Amino acid sequence: MPLFDKPLSELREYRPERVEEPDFDTFWERTLDQAREFPLDVVFEAYDAALSLVDVYDVRYSGWGGHRIAGWFMVPSGATEPLPAVVHYIGYGGGRGLPHDWLATAAAGYATFVMDTRGQGSNGSPGDTPDPVGGANPQTPGFMTRGVLDPEDYYYRRVFTDAVRAVEAAASHPLVDSERIVIAGGSQGGGITQAVAALVPGLAGAMLDVPFLTGYRRATEIVDTMPYGEITKYLSIHRDHEETVFRTLSYFDGTNLAPRCTAPALYSVALMDTTCPPSTIFGAYNYYAGPKEIRVWAYNKHEGGQTFQTRERLLWLRDLFKNEAAER
Amino acid sequence: MPLFDKPLSELREYRPERVEEPDFDTFWERTLDQAREFPLDVVFEAYDAALSLVDVYDVRYSGWGGHRIAGWFMVPSGATEPLPAVVHYIGYGGGRGLPHDWLATAAAGYATFVMDTRGQGSNGSPGDTPDPVGGANPQTPGFMTRGVLDPEDYYYRRVFTDAVRAVEAAASHPLVDSERIVIAGGSQGGGITQAVAALVPGLAGAMLDVPFLTGYRRATEIVDTMPYGEITKYLSIHRDHEETVFRTLSYFDGTNLAPRCTAPALYSVALMDTTCPPSTIFGAYNYYAGPKEIRVWAYNKHEGGQTFQTRERLLWLRDLFKNEAAER
Amino acid sequence: MPLFDKPLSELREYRPERVEEPDFDTFWERTLDQAREFPLDVVFEAYDAALSLVDVYDVRYSGWGGHRIAGWFMVPSGATEPLPAVVHYIGYGGGRGLPHDWLATAAAGYATFVMDTRGQGSNGSPGDTPDPVGGANPQTPGFMTRGVLDPEDYYYRRVFTDAVRAVEAAASHPLVDSERIVIAGGSQGGGITQAVAALVPGLAGAMLDVPFLTGYRRATEIVDTMPYGEITKYLSIHRDHEETVFRTLSYFDGTNLAPRCTAPALYSVALMDTTCPPSTIFGAYNYYAGPKEIRVWAYNKHEGGQTFQTRERLLWLRDLFKNEAAER
Amino acid sequence: MPLFDKPLSELREYRPERVEEPDFDTFWERTLDQAREFPLDVVFEAYDAALSLVDVYDVRYSGWGGHRIAGWFMVPSGATEPLPAVVHYIGYGGGRGLPHDWLATAAAGYATFVMDTRGQGSNGSPGDTPDPVGGANPQTPGFMTRGVLDPEDYYYRRVFTDAVRAVEAAASHPLVDSERIVIAGGSQGGGITQAVAALVPGLAGAMLDVPFLTGYRRATEIVDTMPYGEITKYLSIHRDHEETVFRTLSYFDGTNLAPRCTAPALYSVALMDTTCPPSTIFGAYNYYAGPKEIRVWAYNKHEGGQTFQTRERLLWLRDLFKNEAAER
Amino acid sequence: MPLFDKPLSELREYRPERVEEPDFDTFWERTLDQAREFPLDVVFEAYDAALSLVDVYDVRYSGWGGHRIAGWFMVPSGATEPLPAVVHYIGYGGGRGLPHDWLATAAAGYATFVMDTRGQGSNGSPGDTPDPVGGANPQTPGFMTRGVLDPEDYYYRRVFTDAVRAVEAAASHPLVDSERIVIAGGSQGGGITQAVAALVPGLAGAMLDVPFLTGYRRATEIVDTMPYGEITKYLSIHRDHEETVFRTLSYFDGTNLAPRCTAPALYSVALMDTTCPPSTIFGAYNYYAGPKEIRVWAYNKHEGGQTFQTRERLLWLRDLFKNEAAER
Amino acid sequence: MPLFDKPLSELREYRPERVEEPDFDTFWERTLDQAREFPLDVVFEAYDAALSLVDVYDVRYSGWGGHRIAGWFMVPSGATEPLPAVVHYIGYGGGRGLPHDWLATAAAGYATFVMDTRGQGSNGSPGDTPDPVGGANPQTPGFMTRGVLDPEDYYYRRVFTDAVRAVEAAASHPLVDSERIVIAGGSQGGGITQAVAALVPGLAGAMLDVPFLTGYRRATEIVDTMPYGEITKYLSIHRDHEETVFRTLSYFDGTNLAPRCTAPALYSVALMDTTCPPSTIFGAYNYYAGPKEIRVWAYNKHEGGQTFQTRERLLWLRDLFKNEAAER
Repeated sequence: MPLFDKPLSELREYRPERVEEPDFDTFWERTLDQAREFPLDVVFEAYDAALSLVDVYDVRYSGWGGHRIAGWFMVPSGATEPLPAVVHYIGYGGGRGLPHDWLATAAAGYATFVMDTRGQGSNGSPGDTPDPVGGANPQTPGFMTRGVLDPEDYYYRRVFTDAVRAVEAAASHPLVDSERIVIAGGSQGGGITQAVAALVPGLAGAMLDVPFLTGYRRATEIVDTMPYGEITKYLSIHRDHEETVFRTLSYFDGTNLAPRCTAPALYSVALMDTTCPPSTIFGAYNYYAGPKEIRVWAYNKHEGGQTFQTRERLLWLRDLFKNEAAER
Repeated sequence: MPLFDKPLSELREYRPERVEEPDFDTFWERTLDQAREFPLDVVFEAYDAALSLVDVYDVRYSGWGGHRIAGWFMVPSGATEPLPAVVHYIGYGGGRGLPHDWLATAAAGYATFVMDTRGQGSNGSPGDTPDPVGGANPQTPGFMTRGVLDPEDYYYRRVFTDAVRAVEAAASHPLVDSERIVIAGGSQGGGITQAVAALVPGLAGAMLDVPFLTGYRRATEIVDTMPYGEITKYLSIHRDHEETVFRTLSYFDGTNLAPRCTAPALYSVALMDTTCPPSTIFGAYNYYAGPKEIRVWAYNKHEGGQTFQTRERLLWLRDLFKNEAAER
Repeated sequence: MPLFDKPLSELREYRPERVEEPDFDTFWERTLDQAREFPLDVVFEAYDAALSLVDVYDVRYSGWGGHRIAGWFMVPSGATEPLPAVVHYIGYGGGRGLPHDWLATAAAGYATFVMDTRGQGSNGSPGDTPDPVGGANPQTPGFMTRGVLDPEDYYYRRVFTDAVRAVEAAASHPLVDSERIVIAGGSQGGGITQAVAALVPGLAGAMLDVPFLTGYRRATEIVDTMPYGEITKYLSIHRDHEETVFRTLSYFDGTNLAPRCTAPALYSVALMDTTCPPSTIFGAYNYYAGPKEIRVWAYNKHEGGQTFQTRERLLWLRDLFKNEAAER
Repeated sequence: MPLFDKPLSELREYRPERVEEPDFDTFWERTLDQAREFPLDVVFEAYDAALSLVDVYDVRYSGWGGHRIAGWFMVPSGATEPLPAVVHYIGYGGGRGLPHDWLATAAAGYATFVMDTRGQGSNGSPGDTPDPVGGANPQTPGFMTRGVLDPEDYYYRRVFTDAVRAVEAAASHPLVDSERIVIAGGSQGGGITQAVAALVPGLAGAMLDVPFLTGYRRATEIVDTMPYGEITKYLSIHRDHEETVFRTLSYFDGTNLAPRCTAPALYSVALMDTTCPPSTIFGAYNYYAGPKEIRVWAYNKHEGGQTFQTRERLLWLRDLFKNEAAER
Repeated sequence: MPLFDKPLSELREYRPERVEEPDFDTFWERTLDQAREFPLDVVFEAYDAALSLVDVYDVRYSGWGGHRIAGWFMVPSGATEPLPAVVHYIGYGGGRGLPHDWLATAAAGYATFVMDTRGQGSNGSPGDTPDPVGGANPQTPGFMTRGVLDPEDYYYRRVFTDAVRAVEAAASHPLVDSERIVIAGGSQGGGITQAVAALVPGLAGAMLDVPFLTGYRRATEIVDTMPYGEITKYLSIHRDHEETVFRTLSYFDGTNLAPRCTAPALYSVALMDTTCPPSTIFGAYNYYAGPKEIRVWAYNKHEGGQTFQTRERLLWLRDLFKNEAAER
Repeated sequence: MPLFDKPLSELREYRPERVEEPDFDTFWERTLDQAREFPLDVVFEAYDAALSLVDVYDVRYSGWGGHRIAGWFMVPSGATEPLPAVVHYIGYGGGRGLPHDWLATAAAGYATFVMDTRGQGSNGSPGDTPDPVGGANPQTPGFMTRGVLDPEDYYYRRVFTDAVRAVEAAASHPLVDSERIVIAGGSQGGGITQAVAALVPGLAGAMLDVPFLTGYRRATEIVDTMPYGEITKYLSIHRDHEETVFRTLSYFDGTNLAPRCTAPALYSVALMDTTCPPSTIFGAYNYYAGPKEIRVWAYNKHEGGQTFQTRERLLWLRDLFKNEAAER
């Protein structure tokens, strides 16, 4: 049944009960504090991408635990003034690829920063960043259950921290206007965006397409696709860990992160999406605490709006900075 | 069996027997002459793509039968001198999409022209060009058997002609240096490139990734994937048309087109490609009559080299024009 | 879930809201008037089918746009008096096949007429009738979205018109009693039957098995199978055409055609049919304005009653003409 | 790889080593002798099939073990002279269905006899004949390994015997000319035909489409499809029965039956048939000892020639009896 | 949708309407009486299993119709006193395998008896017991529709009877304490256990994991998996047998057997089980008339609790006999 | 094609070219030396498995890097003399499960030791041992490419080392006769067994069923199944790492380990095994340098001999120790 989730009219009102541990905020404060004990140590090294309209840099900076995270940075050739910037997070499995994979915001004139996802990058597009933390528990292949028995150990604690520091790394470049940074991502990248929007104040905007990492329990109950299915698979074997797992996940759940976000946001959702079901997305969106819009793609699965959504982003960004400029 | 085709050492020597009708060249001369009876009538209309580093134009020109073909054209903002150009052809099913889908060659400083494929553009990426020619025979859904009982009626007669005229359309723009036009495409786009390289003299280069539309009969015998499988499907029903069909296809077969090509060429092939099997590609490549190189991706299916191959293209293009400039 | 649609008790009462354009009837009047400007020009040519109990003719007549439509015609050998006749329409993808594929009604003593479906006939059974109208828009492979942006251009406008003229072609034969013509078809053939029953007055009966082409929007929401899925596929790419597409389809929707039918009808439906879901069929059946019966196959998918339904048809036809004879 | 078996040129010469037990002929003599100890006891009961050009009878006769076997019998209405007849055997899983499923040979003027396959008839088309013999061994679901540990117990011993007696039952009807009986079947029906052609002298002809039940061992080695796969499945569990199983099957193998056949035969084979691989068919055909022809369908799987092959049959039958009449 | 059935809170209350024939009890009385006319004739033959901690016997006894049923029997080496015993029934398709497959209860010190399932044992694990009763009707491959048109003929009439007699066979061994016999099985084995618990008084306990053979009609309506799907398949062909089939099945339905059970029971169920849906299991469990517990596995399909459930069984058994001993 | 690999006669002779780095032996010496710098520190803690014929212990010992590895240990209740022992390694993905999963060798009277596989145990059977080493590179989900760019970092360096130490841990127990230790495993467990047999002198025997981790390159070329497919997947993304990857794997390849083994060995292989293709297994077996036998399962896939092979093992073990005793 293609329209397998709630009807759109219900989705627009859907606010699931939120389950949140009392130390949610202190957990994240502590986490970021720990990470910041390591110097950020950003290195921008010029990279020959065989492109002429943009200058490209191969980036390294210290994320969680001081681990070195790879990235790309691009600015229009010959830029001299600080520019508004877009920081990109990547979908599940993929890595940063090559610079020419990230030209849309660059060609629109924004400083463009891409964060590699630690450990990923062996599916779809190549990555260059290992996750040097060993497993705290046996896990289902993939990333969803790596360290899932304790929020301290959970894989996404490291990834979300890397992502916060990616904003700091971008902001450190002289050609980036640190007051005009927008964060963006689709699927897992959207889930990371939702986390960073909750954890970093002063962002200019957030663009989240078909975000993942939100509404975990419901997701496992209504779809059996990967990657949410990794949780199901884990629990089908480790039958005694159900509550432990969902407690850990609650610290990383968009449903709990969205109410902490205030930057203007552009979401998108696809009504036939069996990977990131619409109710898990609206369940976060409806709690999102900043100005917000959502594009609804009626006849799409997880691909969502694809190139049309890229266009939506470019137009929304232009408006965002135009209005912001007007307000200044 | 992942390595299902001939071993690489045999592939490098593989020259299948060519089956070619005596009027092959006159068929194509006549076809192009007929098409050129219609004025090309290129229109470049400025398009707001929300990009700032490039100027974008929505293009229309007359292809086969005077039918209007859509395209995109991009040049670096503020360009004033004629530039080398790349003309792109598209993979099976897809359409021209949106301009930001084609930024790699544009950001490398080339004038970039994209031809929409008539009738296609309802799979993967959207297109805007109908094929206003009705069916000359019942056909398998798709494009492979549309008009396949007669070379005069065959769908790719129209597409290849559109593609020849796309080069003419690109060359007509004042910011294009008509002596430095490279054509490019992957899969079906690679097959079209092979045809245009045979039919248009004076091209500066051709880039063909995992080209389709070559070695039809062998393809139907060793793989059952689409789109070659459309031919199999057709012949499984129209059991009495086998020879007629392969006679028609011989006019559109890369194995017969490649020996007529002289421009420098960069090919790529993937050894586990079950969509465009390596022997069908080497079967053309080994006959290609110009300077040539081929990138071999050992562990890939039809995705081939993906972003790595894009990088190969950018480097090859840079060398091509550097050497050419040096030679001048 | 095999019983994926509404329960039978609800299906029997299900009358979905009908969405119909004000010019529905004038659209069809105009369409048929235009078609009738071309002479019907039926040709019955004797065909050696190696059968001895029936005489077989290869038929050609002019359908929409004067295009020549193929068909078969069979009568009992040596028949001399006008007979009741059955006009058959074919399921999606298939063609008229060969005469021995259509013997059931012939062996039951009815004049039997089979209409080839233009463009189809390369799947399941071979056909001989091209659709000589070019595409008005890029389309998903198949027939469901050919010309779907405008009712004037839509593929089924031509097919339904051909089907109306097939009745006229059958009626023109001296061995057919034009007052005793029944139309029949399964799946797409059932959808065509529903249209013809609405557009042709004076039919003796209509037999519709698991009819297709009815309740399009609901179909795309509850099943993802082909051929309704072609619409979903199209809209997943051409995201901006949703309303245009469903407006076009409303002219060809059984839900709007059934209320215009008055001939006695025998329907069948299968409760586990994921190709033509039962609610889309009952949604039309419950509006059907003539005397009607429906056979419900509880444990079947789209195959429905198969040979049992053929028997139901033969018995229903015998009763129909017996009662009619009695009434005369 | 669609052309997965030997190339056609090799197939035409392929004569596999035959493995045959010394008591092959006495086994079958004894089997038929035992069966004939039961009176044939044919009953032809008029059946209202709602057809008017043919008279239909529901048949019962005694097959192996005196078990009652169902069938259909049809003759042209009003026939008074003995006619040539066709006895049909059915494909795997299916049953005799309803009379209107068997009209092709009837409409061509032949007396038509259809044998139900004991135990089958719950897949595709319904049957009415149980197999009242219990299992002599645990078996894989299906019929291929029922009693497979001993030729005396093997399921097809009973089926082939029923099939021999079907010819006798047909011949017993006054409207059948017992000197002009042709036997026919596709797939399993073709395998049964091959057996009956070896076991019954004096047949006028045999028509075998894509015959099954021949070349068992090779079949299990080159395809993993059902129903040959039932043997593989059985041997994957009963790992110690390999030689016993293939010894039993040797009594029922077309490769051993074909050399014992002398009636004129029309075979067909499909080169992409993964259910009944072409080498298993040519392996029998090349040993067939009577006059023979084979239709080769190059681009088909197990569906073979379908309606085209039906036409081939009707033409071949007409020639057969024309020539025969001429010879008399 | 992984949680495809009713929510757990509803499942815990779910008591479907029971449909039971008036002669249900007399049917079973008569059935068992008939079986007991044959002497049980148990034979325990020492078997060299290459094990040293247990003594192993290859068992044969007479089940339904006096047919010889195979089994295994194991006791701790050197046991001299009557022991509590566990009688095991097997899941669908499988056979008794080898003795080392059944060590868990043996190593826990229980006399262990395993009943082979007649006719099965050619899937998963090998069996040695044929079902020497021939088919009373054509059937779908498998066992679900063997003899399904009449409760007298139905396959599970024989199996349930064999299973009752297995308890008698176990009880006959001098090392078995016939007052302390527990029966056990998973899936089909659980369904058989449910039947035996209803038909044999005085059992010490019953362990039923994800039991099959219960709630047939609902099962065919909500899942399309095998083996319930065999019924669907049968009814999709034998469209006229729906009521007959479900009438037969009512004699073998856990929903009707559970209310007749009084021994203490340990059930298990898996909430994502699409083979034996949770509502069919709770539909019986909630009617179960003895003391009972159920383990609910939330994230599992038909594998249920697997090794964890084995542990649950061992602990439950220990408690059962400890309490029982305490009560004595 | 079920028999997709070389024919058995060729397999029996197949000795592929071996590619081995010069420091192969020193690599392993160094690796084990490093591991042994950590004290083994075995802990045997009594565990209540609710079994009475065996005593069960939950084991922990130090493997590679001093990491704590879980295991089970079982001996017959009341044993007082040192016993021959079997050390088990586990198939890919699974963990040590529960003690009752490992009863076969225990019930045969052997001390039984089971090693958990670090990081695994979330598929099939649960495990309790994390792999506390972080990734040295991005990797394909699973274990095959974890650290694959350097033999020092490779996952199986740690696993093989754990396995060597498992033998030491078993030998340390007073009820184990350290001169009579046999190692055993299937699939991955068989691959580990092959490694341990090469790295540990003085073993009494080795049992390897359908061993994995041998002939990597050929495996990726002839099958596309997991887990070998993880390598293919990795190389399809990290296209530039092909030689690096296969260099690393050469240190862990059964083809290079087998020639270093001298203990008597019992192998098994399945000819239709598409997970661990027969040529990869014979490619190692034929180089195995000790006394050896191989059981060939002709009609099986990766399940191999299953329960029959367990029986083969028990008989082989009995013979092994009988002969050994005789020799002493």
